[in-house]
Order: sequence, then structure tokens, then C-alpha cells
Amino acid sequence: MNFRICLIGMGVVGRSFLQLLKEKEELFERKFDLKFIVNSIFEIDGALIKENGIDLKELLNSNKSYRNLSFWKSGVKPIDLISKLSLDVCVETTPTNHKTGEPGLSHIIEALRNRIDVISSNKGPFYLEYEKIKNLAKENNCSLKYEATVASAVPTLSIKNNLIGNEILSIKAILNGTNNYILSRMTAEGVNFSFALNEAQEFGYAETDPTLDIEGYDAAGKLVILANDLLGWSKSIDDVNIEGITKITPQAIELANSEDYVIKHLAIAESNKLTVEPVLIEKSSPLNIGGTLNVIELQTKYAGPIILIGRGAGGFEAASAIINDLVAIGIKKQIKP
Amino acid sequence: MNFRICLIGMGVVGRSFLQLLKEKEELFERKFDLKFIVNSIFEIDGALIKENGIDLKELLNSNKSYRNLSFWKSGVKPIDLISKLSLDVCVETTPTNHKTGEPGLSHIIEALRNRIDVISSNKGPFYLEYEKIKNLAKENNCSLKYEATVASAVPTLSIKNNLIGNEILSIKAILNGTNNYILSRMTAEGVNFSFALNEAQEFGYAETDPTLDIEGYDAAGKLVILANDLLGWSKSIDDVNIEGITKITPQAIELANSEDYVIKHLAIAESNKLTVEPVLIEKSSPLNIGGTLNVIELQTKYAGPIILIGRGAGGFEAASAIINDLVAIGIKKQIKP
Repeated sequence: MNFRICLIGMGVVGRSFLQLLKEKEELFERKFDLKFIVNSIFEIDGALIKENGIDLKELLNSNKSYRNLSFWKSGVKPIDLISKLSLDVCVETTPTNHKTGEPGLSHIIEALRNRIDVISSNKGPFYLEYEKIKNLAKENNCSLKYEATVASAVPTLSIKNNLIGNEILSIKAILNGTNNYILSRMTAEGVNFSFALNEAQEFGYAETDPTLDIEGYDAAGKLVILANDLLGWSKSIDDVNIEGITKITPQAIELANSEDYVIKHLAIAESNKLTVEPVLIEKSSPLNIGGTLNVIELQTKYAGPIILIGRGAGGFEAASAIINDLVAIGIKKQIKP
Repeated sequence: MNFRICLIGMGVVGRSFLQLLKEKEELFERKFDLKFIVNSIFEIDGALIKENGIDLKELLNSNKSYRNLSFWKSGVKPIDLISKLSLDVCVETTPTNHKTGEPGLSHIIEALRNRIDVISSNKGPFYLEYEKIKNLAKENNCSLKYEATVASAVPTLSIKNNLIGNEILSIKAILNGTNNYILSRMTAEGVNFSFALNEAQEFGYAETDPTLDIEGYDAAGKLVILANDLLGWSKSIDDVNIEGITKITPQAIELANSEDYVIKHLAIAESNKLTVEPVLIEKSSPLNIGGTLNVIELQTKYAGPIILIGRGAGGFEAASAIINDLVAIGIKKQIKP
């Protein structure tokens, strides 16, 4: 069965997605009888378009700028072309404006309105307008998948399919690798917040403007997605009580340490409330993980805590989550076209 | 769609399964249009049999011994009746003989030969005769599921469905809660092995004859199941190099501690080799979990380590894994009857 895909965004995630799809395409055709054809790739200033499919090997190995390729159409926008191309799945990987969710939100809405399934690594639309796009997907009988938005390759959302015999009651998580790195360094070395932040920026773990991370907004967005998806809530980021990590002092960390505690920046969904804030946890807790790792603890009704740990970011990490969503959609569509 | 079930074994897991199925049956009928009917429950000396379905509420609330119920048939055996009952799924929860896999192995073979899907919480058959029963299931076009055999409710086997876009390369795990408890106590309190074992027995974490646990055989069996299922290997327990925890001294633990290491009993599948042995790991490693918890670290090609942590045992824990397998089989059968 053929699946025609448009990719929106050719940043690190978009490129990793194309490369991983190329690596795995033979396996998927052999194992699942799924043939994925990328017929359009959108960038901010135009798109590569080939209705019968772009040769990914040629594209990825080419030394030319893609803007010099014969099938580059300058100036075209996803919003104008999504309804005109033959598409089964739209893969949205653009960076997002955290206040408007754009341009990703409009891309997702346009795809769903045209009955095209959507996979997104772009989280803004989901913590800002969850209800709207969820309902739109339902009305149009579309799949809507976004595993990559939370903890990238760690299956934090699809895990609910593995826990149907159980029941998830609440969530505690570390969802921002930058903040976890900063706190881990402050704890290990006794340095202050600014010093650890500078170090994180030098290593590329923190952005030049780290506000969204250190003020807790990034973690809050991911928490909203987790709570809506795993607990069946209908929240947006405005519902989260957010406190960042900028006021944490080496003295506070030292005091915690003397009592066998650490300070971690936790995202918590329980009793219908969403909170992101620095919390004291016991050193021996499975939530006490170091470096840039993410951790998600699901409190369950029938088996206590079930905990997932892994990398929260990275091109191939996100790409592997997108590919997983893609195969799931493909298998579903084979069964119920 | 109706699913007729036989349960073999009415121990803690079997009873928890019935109770959880009762709790969830309305949800499953409403959400998935799946109606599960238990028409036979086998114990060592007979069976409860009611072709049109046993009333689970009545059974679970009854003060009578089930042997006094009107539909108790004394002396009947699964092996004689599986082919005669109308069955879709056989749930096997008997304790196993670790050398022969019996009686579970024969039950599983008999069910598959009669084209009945199988769910097992009994691990013996899978680490002793994996190839045989896997092939038999394939030949008869049957589902064969056994999530509960490794780390109970933690989705260590079904997780591979969530990682199709990735690739699992190797496994490191703590798979025996008894041993992890003993080592955790030796580490925290400086006590010796015998003292910690006695304590574990008092608390019910270790059996009266703890040999299978402390000599590493239990962990080795689970490791075989993980490697065969997640890495596509075809091993049996005879292929595992096993060293138990009985020779670990407080002095060795203290020495490790002084260098910021702990000693953990790890089950490792890598480079086509299976090993269960005490290993030094850094204190800060996510594998350093305490108490009776299990941890499974999957090294992946595209996202580094993905780690799962949770309870390794317990009635409802195992039952929730069985129920998950049951719903997965039900959904699959609805699609391709």
C-alpha cells in the first residue's frame, strides 16, 4: 500500500526523518507492505515538489543546495498546496511560536480539513489548541499523532496502548533536559545558576535565549500534552502553575543534599491540577536522574509506579518517534482504509 | 464480539485476573465492543465449567469453596478438555517446573494445536522451548502473548511495538526483585548475605527455597524471553552464563561504595551473548534502583538508552499485563477474524 507524505520543515528533525525513512523503507515494505513516498518537502521560502516521489537518496547525498534543484518551487506555502497535492500524511516539524502555535497550527488544521492524517513533532499546537485540533481530527476521521513532542523517542504517549489492562492515575516527570542539566551541574559542582546556564549554552544544551526552558514554559507545554493524552484531560498551558529554576541557589541545593535530598524541576499532573516547579526528592528516587535525560513516572492503579527514562531531544530521537507514528498510521489504514 | 476464555490456575495471579476482568468488562464492551466470557477455570484437581459463562461476581463474592459449587467437575484436566470446550483464548497461570516447563508447556501446546490463542504468565515454557511454541503458534495462525512473564505490568515486551521507528541493539536489566532487595539491604545496612536473605524471607520477598532467585536462574529465564522477543534471538536458558549473588560479601560492597559504585545483579544480552552476574555500576546510573523494583535498559540505535522501571511481581501487576494481552488479541481478531 502506498502512502504519500508531505514534510513541512527541513531542520534537524526534518532531515533526520528523511534519512531514517530512507534507511528503513525496505524493511517497512517487506515487513508491513507499506511504501512511503515523500512527494513534497516545504521550507520557509518554498518547496521541493515531485508528485511521483522525491528520490531521498539523491536528495540527501546531493551537494547542491536544495534550492538549486529542478523541482524546487520558490515561494510556495504549505497552506496553499496541501489541498492540491495527493497526500495521505502530513509531517509537521517546524519550530513553533509558543504564543500562537503558528505556523504549525495552521498547517495541521489545513491538513485535517482535507482529511489528511497528521504527525507532528511541533508541540505548540497541542498545548495551545488541543481540543480544537483533536475534535477536527475526529470530525474528519483522521489520525493525529505527536509522540515526538514529549521526550522524543521515549514512548511516553503510545505507552497508553500497553497499559489498557491498567489505569494511569497521575504523572510526575522531568521533561526539560536543559533544566535537568543545569540542576545536575549545580548539585554536582556547587556552582551557581548563571555559571551552570553558561556552561549549558557552551555545550549547546541551552539556547541563546533560554527563557522558555528555565522559566518552565517548555516543560509546562509537554506536561499539558501528557495529561491530555494519558489522563484524558482537556487542559491548555494557561492551566499550569509554573515556577522556573532561576531562583534556586547553591545554598538551597547544599541544604537539601545534607538531608539526602536533591532539588529537581518536576512537572506534575495529579488531582486535576498541573504544576511545574522545583521539588525536593529523595536521592534514592528513580526520578533522581542526571544530565539531560528526561524521566516520566506514571502512577498506576494496578501496578504502582511505571517509569520511563530516555533522551528528551535530538534529531534522530525525534525522527524515530515520527517514523513510529507513521508506521502505526500505515498499519491502521491498511486495515480500515 | 464474544471471546470465550479458559483460565488455567487459580493462584494469586489467576484470581487477580478474574477480579480485574470483572472490574474492566463494562469498559471493554463499551470502548472496544469486546465481550469476554470465562467458561472454564482449571485447578490442579478439577475445574469449574459453564459453557455459557461463569458469573465472575458470584464466584468472587462466594464464601463457598469453589469445589463445592454445582459446576465444579472433580478430576478433569485441561489437557483432556481444551479441545472439547468452545474457546478463543487460553490463559495459562500455573506455577512451572523450571526444568520441564510442565504442566504449562503441555497446556500451551494443546491450546495452540487446537488453534486457540494463548496468554501466559508462566515463563518456563518460553525460556525452555521458545522455538517450538513460537513455531507452533505460527503454523496454527495463533496469537501467543506473555507480557506478564517479565517484570509483570511493565510493558517490556509490547514496548517493541512503540519502537518500530528505532532499533533495539542490546539489553541490560535487573529482573529479579528478591535479589535486588537483598543487595539493596546489604548496601544500605552493611549486613551480610544470609542476614539480608532471612529478612527478605520474613517480609515475603523471598521464597522458603530461594535457590532459583539467588542463583540467578529466575533472572536468566526472563533474560532469555527478553532477548528472543526484543532482539529476535533464538536462545534457551542453557545458553546463559549464570552467576548468582550468594558470594557477594559486605566487604566487596563497601569497597565498591568507596569508589562511588554499587554491585547490582545484572542480566545482559549483547553481542549474541547472555549473561547474568553481579556487576559494578556507577551510583548515578539509572540502573541503580533500590528495593524490589525491576529495571530494563534497552540500548537503541537512534535514541541511546530507553529505560523502563517498575514492579517485577504481584497478582494485580501480572493480571494487568494479561488483560492488556487479552485486549490486544481481541482487537486483532475483530479486524482479522
